[in-house]
Amino acid sequence: MSRFAPLPDPPYYAVIFTNQASATPEGYDEMAAKMAELAAEQDGYLGLESTRDVDGLAITVSYWQDEAAIAAWRANVKHAAAQAFGKSNWYAHYVLRVARVERAYDGPDGR
Amino acid sequence: MSRFAPLPDPPYYAVIFTNQASATPEGYDEMAAKMAELAAEQDGYLGLESTRDVDGLAITVSYWQDEAAIAAWRANVKHAAAQAFGKSNWYAHYVLRVARVERAYDGPDGR
Repeated sequence: MSRFAPLPDPPYYAVIFTNQASATPEGYDEMAAKMAELAAEQDGYLGLESTRDVDGLAITVSYWQDEAAIAAWRANVKHAAAQAFGKSNWYAHYVLRVARVERAYDGPDGR
Repeated sequence: MSRFAPLPDPPYYAVIFTNQASATPEGYDEMAAKMAELAAEQDGYLGLESTRDVDGLAITVSYWQDEAAIAAWRANVKHAAAQAFGKSNWYAHYVLRVARVERAYDGPDGR
């Protein structure tokens, strides 16, 4: 399975979630997998890209049709619960940005 | 040094660069460091976040004041040269998205 999200025609939205795992991130992988699963169940979900280095710095970018889809995802009860849990357990620090994708390219062959 | 970019007031721009290193990415780390250095020299550069996992999937997000700053970065001769070199050497695949950051949050303490 490709680790790249599909490339729908812009505009659409990206949630850029950069996070540093805590020193004791037990259950981090299971939480991350569950969050990805919940996102994929939401209407308006377009895809997700995620990577994490050996020092525990992760960037996960999820893509959404519109702001309403992001709001619905955030309102998801299970997601909210996991957020609350995560805030006190998994992350030493995180930044979440919501951005509107204006254009996109892929390669190396171009298009 | 923090691996998180600063959090200026939105709106500003993000260049989301997801890439899979090729099977023979000699010089990848040096190229990535050089690209980060060149970005930091540009007017309108706000910061950069980057991580790469053991399988070579990397996400680098650079942040910019406006579209003009991104255009100036792209026009940079050295950057353009590195892009051309990179397309044939470092990346098995990449996707680059330009997005306008609408809002941002950080945590775990919130703000």
